[in-house]
Amino acid sequence: MKLSHMLLASAAALLAAPVLAQTPSVSAAEQDKLDAVADQALQSDAYAWDFVEGLTTEVGPRQSGTAAEQRARDWAKKWLTAQGFANVREEPFMMKTWVRGVEKAEVVSPFPQPLTLVALGNSAATPADGITAQVVGFDSYAALEAAPAGSLKGKIAFISHHMKRTQDGSGYGFAGPVRWTGPGLAASKGAVAAVIRSVGTDNHRTPHTGGTSFPDGVAPIPAAALSNPDADNLARMLERSDDVKLHLVLTPRNLGETKSGNVTAEIVGRDPSLPPVLLACHLDSWDLGTGAIDDGAGCAIIAAAAQHVAEAGQPLRTIRVLFAGAEETGVWGGKAYAKAHAKEPIAVGLESDFGADRIWQIRTNFAAGNEALHKALIQAVERFGVEGSTAIADNGEDLTIIHDQKTGHVDLAQDGTHYFDLHHTPDDTLDKIDPVQLRQNVAVWTQVVGLLSNEAGPIKPD
Amino acid sequence: MKLSHMLLASAAALLAAPVLAQTPSVSAAEQDKLDAVADQALQSDAYAWDFVEGLTTEVGPRQSGTAAEQRARDWAKKWLTAQGFANVREEPFMMKTWVRGVEKAEVVSPFPQPLTLVALGNSAATPADGITAQVVGFDSYAALEAAPAGSLKGKIAFISHHMKRTQDGSGYGFAGPVRWTGPGLAASKGAVAAVIRSVGTDNHRTPHTGGTSFPDGVAPIPAAALSNPDADNLARMLERSDDVKLHLVLTPRNLGETKSGNVTAEIVGRDPSLPPVLLACHLDSWDLGTGAIDDGAGCAIIAAAAQHVAEAGQPLRTIRVLFAGAEETGVWGGKAYAKAHAKEPIAVGLESDFGADRIWQIRTNFAAGNEALHKALIQAVERFGVEGSTAIADNGEDLTIIHDQKTGHVDLAQDGTHYFDLHHTPDDTLDKIDPVQLRQNVAVWTQVVGLLSNEAGPIKPD
Repeated sequence: MKLSHMLLASAAALLAAPVLAQTPSVSAAEQDKLDAVADQALQSDAYAWDFVEGLTTEVGPRQSGTAAEQRARDWAKKWLTAQGFANVREEPFMMKTWVRGVEKAEVVSPFPQPLTLVALGNSAATPADGITAQVVGFDSYAALEAAPAGSLKGKIAFISHHMKRTQDGSGYGFAGPVRWTGPGLAASKGAVAAVIRSVGTDNHRTPHTGGTSFPDGVAPIPAAALSNPDADNLARMLERSDDVKLHLVLTPRNLGETKSGNVTAEIVGRDPSLPPVLLACHLDSWDLGTGAIDDGAGCAIIAAAAQHVAEAGQPLRTIRVLFAGAEETGVWGGKAYAKAHAKEPIAVGLESDFGADRIWQIRTNFAAGNEALHKALIQAVERFGVEGSTAIADNGEDLTIIHDQKTGHVDLAQDGTHYFDLHHTPDDTLDKIDPVQLRQNVAVWTQVVGLLSNEAGPIKPD
Repeated sequence: MKLSHMLLASAAALLAAPVLAQTPSVSAAEQDKLDAVADQALQSDAYAWDFVEGLTTEVGPRQSGTAAEQRARDWAKKWLTAQGFANVREEPFMMKTWVRGVEKAEVVSPFPQPLTLVALGNSAATPADGITAQVVGFDSYAALEAAPAGSLKGKIAFISHHMKRTQDGSGYGFAGPVRWTGPGLAASKGAVAAVIRSVGTDNHRTPHTGGTSFPDGVAPIPAAALSNPDADNLARMLERSDDVKLHLVLTPRNLGETKSGNVTAEIVGRDPSLPPVLLACHLDSWDLGTGAIDDGAGCAIIAAAAQHVAEAGQPLRTIRVLFAGAEETGVWGGKAYAKAHAKEPIAVGLESDFGADRIWQIRTNFAAGNEALHKALIQAVERFGVEGSTAIADNGEDLTIIHDQKTGHVDLAQDGTHYFDLHHTPDDTLDKIDPVQLRQNVAVWTQVVGLLSNEAGPIKPD
């Protein structure tokens, strides 16, 4: 949630009078059935665990644009078909693909020892035998910004900004720029390479990868993330010496254009002429882990919810699931979907892409225009420990089409307290998912998707 | 603690009447001073944190027999000298050294993906381009034992014995054989390689290394440990398919004989003719982490305790610290020390080599022969939350000389609940040490070493 949205939402609550007093169109009988399947979902591992256990075991890592991601699409299509989904489709698109190579770092002097790091997406390569240079440390992004132009010429910049642990994931907003643009900023000041403290909250030797980007006119440099214990160690060395030399070998490659794709499937509604409910996740993962929480769990949750809703009876609107491709490396799939389907109106979109811990808050973007449905959703999920909010829904990287169409949007906000212990690391594996919390996600999604897909009137009136 | 010792100790308590009623020779004034410095140690990071922070930062990993271990000895001698220790000495010895090389594993079929593993000490090498073979899984050491002779011909054995989390470290006794002798057992049944589930209690992608050995007449095979999440994944694959093929590249090398060494230093006592108190730890570490808990913390604790005791006034007996070399790869240092100093009687020996978590129990081997001192020690550490025990002290890999001389022995047993999350992994780093718990160790050691080094009579009468 962004602060600006909190303020806007508060203002809207004070100023906006409901234009039309609507009533949710779900009948009491339908509501009873939906409540019952949501309650059942809270006790069942039927679909979601089966999906994420299968995907992480039988496919594992599935980096965008690679053969592994194609295996994931094949696996997902087979699974969706076996589960009875209709219109299971793959929609290919082309993308630019970067893959990692050798990654090694060692302090040459004054305290010789290896350090553990991983290259960041879009990192340039060093020569095969590496580079050796003096390290200049910055304890924050702001400190790097303050470094004079040209001051890093021939140096390796080390940016050691600490990330804070937060429930709502807001720590990522503060620490994220170190990865997103820190290496580019260092390059613009003359650095020959950049190493950052992992953007993560754990203290394991499992560094956090992720994409970085370089501004126009700035040539990419080798860029990598140290694990937090390694960043601590390098920081201690820099407290002792102003002449710490690092040897760095990174040999990633750009493969040029390769194929990726989206997978879509549907629970067809009783009235297919009504705009569908779109449930999104992303099927690709970073290459280091098996993508259990990012975002196998998300695809598991949305697919399971769609199935549970269907168990309560055919919904009024079609439910479409979008397993987006290539989210991690630039939201290629979300953008491709929005472009290919620009002229097909969507009623409302929701994405699950924040791990598998419990949902604690629901937000919509139609509290003003459709207060009755907004309130009905909040009321329906209260028994699962989920609170309402006046903040306006805006999450979901792959929901480009929802942003383009300015249509309905619901966020089911998950507890992110532990998410950044695992995000983009080798540690993103199945054992990190708590089945009990996964079930709560599926139950809440079942309830919400059930109500939305059985709503006859416009979900977000203009 | 071993079960047999518990039974023996109980029997001893029932049967043995004290032969001589001794009285500890520490005066009330001395005891007051020792109590005061121990209490101060509970509030101070003065020596122990300084040691382990410095060693892990300025030296880092220090595998036995390598140049890094020599750097550790040089660093330790400098530190001990700077702290005012007397007779700081290095005692070199030769040992056989094995070093790791490339380590890669990937499932070739039916679920292609990489797995994370590390070679075990003494592992043989594969060819540079690796080997590919079918995996045969065993869920316990007993299951591997039951496999018929020759049944693993051409296969890779996978031993997936789970380790239990315990306070006293007894889980290691049950799971340890999988690493110590599992690969040798698999080799004797024809396996071309062995991979084991890490002997560890964590669920991170940080596998646990450690030594393995092969029986006489059995040629070493490539042997490695998967991280626990990877072992879980491979086990799930084997539930789905009886034809899982693994490609394995391991290129460790035997360097032949290389130099290692012990470092010793002393707080000289008022009566150097009395046998000294020997405090041991090991200075070498495995190569994956920086050896903070195994065993930087141990050396930090014993050195800090010796210093604190000296602060209370010159002790009666000399306190000798032994930073043993090459413990991890076969207790080379402890054995070399015992051989070189066989004719110098030691009064009593203690080792710290189980991390940095709090001490919960004290055990001696002189409850029967010197009940008064045994009881005085227990009483003195009660205020630090340490309980007495009827079990007989027998810990300390590097205390070979104590076992040889059958002399006094005290165990200060640490809480090992979390120790095997980190033991022999890349995650053995400084951030894993809780300074508060480290201080409790130093306080208890100060108290116990203070009493022992001021004891005039024989500590363990014959």
